[in-house]
Amino acid sequence: MVAKRFHKKKKPIPIQEYVEGIKAGDRTILAKAITLIESNNLDHFRAGQQLLQEILPLTGKSMRIGITGVPGAGKSTFIERFGTELCKMGKKVAVLAIDPSSTLSQGSILGDKTRMEKLSREENAFIRPSPSGGNLGGVHRKTRETILLCEAAGFDMILVETVGVGQSEVDVRTMVDMFLLLTITGAGDDLQGMKKGIMELVDAIIVTKADGDNKEKALKTRNEYNQILRLLKQATDGWGTKAVACSSITGEGINEIWELITKFFADTKKSGVFYTRRREQTIDWLITSIKERLEQSFFQHELVKEQLPIVKRNVEKGKLPVSIAVENLLSAYFNQEH
Amino acid sequence: MVAKRFHKKKKPIPIQEYVEGIKAGDRTILAKAITLIESNNLDHFRAGQQLLQEILPLTGKSMRIGITGVPGAGKSTFIERFGTELCKMGKKVAVLAIDPSSTLSQGSILGDKTRMEKLSREENAFIRPSPSGGNLGGVHRKTRETILLCEAAGFDMILVETVGVGQSEVDVRTMVDMFLLLTITGAGDDLQGMKKGIMELVDAIIVTKADGDNKEKALKTRNEYNQILRLLKQATDGWGTKAVACSSITGEGINEIWELITKFFADTKKSGVFYTRRREQTIDWLITSIKERLEQSFFQHELVKEQLPIVKRNVEKGKLPVSIAVENLLSAYFNQEH
Repeated sequence: MVAKRFHKKKKPIPIQEYVEGIKAGDRTILAKAITLIESNNLDHFRAGQQLLQEILPLTGKSMRIGITGVPGAGKSTFIERFGTELCKMGKKVAVLAIDPSSTLSQGSILGDKTRMEKLSREENAFIRPSPSGGNLGGVHRKTRETILLCEAAGFDMILVETVGVGQSEVDVRTMVDMFLLLTITGAGDDLQGMKKGIMELVDAIIVTKADGDNKEKALKTRNEYNQILRLLKQATDGWGTKAVACSSITGEGINEIWELITKFFADTKKSGVFYTRRREQTIDWLITSIKERLEQSFFQHELVKEQLPIVKRNVEKGKLPVSIAVENLLSAYFNQEH
Repeated sequence: MVAKRFHKKKKPIPIQEYVEGIKAGDRTILAKAITLIESNNLDHFRAGQQLLQEILPLTGKSMRIGITGVPGAGKSTFIERFGTELCKMGKKVAVLAIDPSSTLSQGSILGDKTRMEKLSREENAFIRPSPSGGNLGGVHRKTRETILLCEAAGFDMILVETVGVGQSEVDVRTMVDMFLLLTITGAGDDLQGMKKGIMELVDAIIVTKADGDNKEKALKTRNEYNQILRLLKQATDGWGTKAVACSSITGEGINEIWELITKFFADTKKSGVFYTRRREQTIDWLITSIKERLEQSFFQHELVKEQLPIVKRNVEKGKLPVSIAVENLLSAYFNQEH
């Protein structure tokens, strides 16, 4: 019996078992499937790919929504409240949190998981931090594939949360249908300090903490954003980005946000922008993945790792023209086996 | 005699002849050397690389200045005037014009060459359109290498002109020390209509056509820019981007621009930002070139060209997961000879 259990532990779960479990909406199997997808082990990777192939026909039917905002903007509290409301409406909500500044084992968003205590107790919710760091392109692939797995498991609302710093918003924009920016009213200069770029990436700005003493200020900030937004480029063709205010405590404004979201999906599906974007995102993902793999293959190549620092030094010192450096490195690389 | 001349025509100029000519500041040889660098012929390319290696110790001593602005902003007129003033001061001025919308044989900037008639008659001026279009990464490499050749030929002011549309400003920013945006006073909404991004790329904004009836409006526009600039990110550490006004007709403001430029170079050399940027630009160029060559090698590969459209269709239709598509394409590519 002991031997049998030991044996069972080592034996990988058959793909078909994953497929059945996911189809049945089993969250434990879903979590294991995501771990498989995330693994850098080659066998796991291959099994994960086979699994993806199997569940592919079941994917694509969710609302994919990105949520960004600087730390302190109230993302966790908002997702907790909003997600719980969605569950009450009968939605199945998956929350995938990407934290570029942390690794899987430690980091602020994993901490958030325990903060979203109420939501995590909901039967129709699934909360999962997305690993980051490590290998090139890993975040894209793993988060995108996790979205697909969640969709196959019947989750119809996928909330992809990211910290509003660095490159991660740009990455998330490429994998969601609608993108929300969460912000709070601040020291008056918060509009100036914010990177203009991010406002042109999002489809709605949500001013949080519109409650108590802060409510009036929050509404004022919302109005200021709406003024600025008129001057900026839209993130989505035919959709005017709007700012709204809400309180994750009182729940005021949450309904309005849900209406805005349903309108966004209705409008963009009607105009076809939704479908075009999904198609383009998939092809972009393909091309980006190829480029990343090519770069990975090159820059991780033993010979390149050995020669590149020397070449860099010579180029910096003006001893070697860039073009010759490139030629030398590439011919060394291509003449080796892969 | 005829046979000999015929023979001579076919024979390539020896590298050493190029080197000597460039060292002597011979503009005809310089022009031929640039043609060599620009050639897509493999022999020419190799000769060009050898030449670059030879002249590399003579490079790096110019002020590399980028100039951008939408068509009609008065770029040619400004460069004509400013360049002529620089020549009078004893500077040697090279103007390299990148026009992403045209090919070598035709296009608006080539037209500009004849418009810069006065400057092109100056003994210390050299005007050259930079080819674009065509192969991946060509513009970067060729313009960068042309800058090096001009420097070796003793040109101490390199003006890289580009039309302010699309990607070209971002590219030019990576190859110059200082970047100028030329603009005119407009219909009042010109500040709003302008992409915020470009203002965060440049080190000075020059409002041109500040003469006659237009002068007052131009000064007002300059002041408006200066107000906006305070809210934006600086392009260069420690340098506050400024707006100035000038007239390329009366020459008013041209001196002020020259003072601004010398201050920029003095300040950034003192702080070290100048040297750090040059070093980073070179390494970025190396890495970017490698990536471009890897992509070129992949996407131009016969097998990839044949399979990619089919793979794209299957991915779009949801028949094939992206990761599997990537794996298949890459193993097909790596298993072939290069």
